[in-house]
Amino acid sequence: MRLLEIAEVRFNDAGLVPVVVQQHNSGKVLMLAWANAETLRESIELGEMVYFSRSRNERWHKGETSGNTQRIVDLSLDCDGDTVLAIVDSHGPACHNGTETCFEEH
Amino acid sequence: MRLLEIAEVRFNDAGLVPVVVQQHNSGKVLMLAWANAETLRESIELGEMVYFSRSRNERWHKGETSGNTQRIVDLSLDCDGDTVLAIVDSHGPACHNGTETCFEEH
Repeated sequence: MRLLEIAEVRFNDAGLVPVVVQQHNSGKVLMLAWANAETLRESIELGEMVYFSRSRNERWHKGETSGNTQRIVDLSLDCDGDTVLAIVDSHGPACHNGTETCFEEH
Repeated sequence: MRLLEIAEVRFNDAGLVPVVVQQHNSGKVLMLAWANAETLRESIELGEMVYFSRSRNERWHKGETSGNTQRIVDLSLDCDGDTVLAIVDSHGPACHNGTETCFEEH
């Protein structure tokens, strides 16, 4: 498992970085979420994705209430350091609508 | 080919939406880019991805100078309308560093 260096991440003015979340075996893009330095660090320590919810303005441990957690398989940073790619093993659907990904009709 | 409805896109305060770009056959996530309404419309008309470069603050037709264009296979919107997933056929490497994706070591 590659794990990115948080010191290398270029967060935006709000202290956030977009995280592209991809299912490890199907290759499907599940969702785009946002993280700050703290939730990235927590993700790495926990081995599961923890985001920052922009709408609720709070830490968001994905699956904490739904059970649909995302175990980290690989975390990498793009060439200019401002996007994270999280390859995960999603336990259950990623979307709050109950679909496997957030990019499906429902 | 699905094509999103631009009227349904929720652009951010800067008038931009993040675009997750995925290679259609390998499933690899190539990059994350940004588009505005105008470049999304142009992408759909052209059948190739046109972005908005935040660093150069201008329209950016991917591959116009490098030849590494991205033909659109599918364009969809996520459940809350604030992220685009572009499934493309990339002609050549997506990254300006010459790697296939922007998420590789170089």
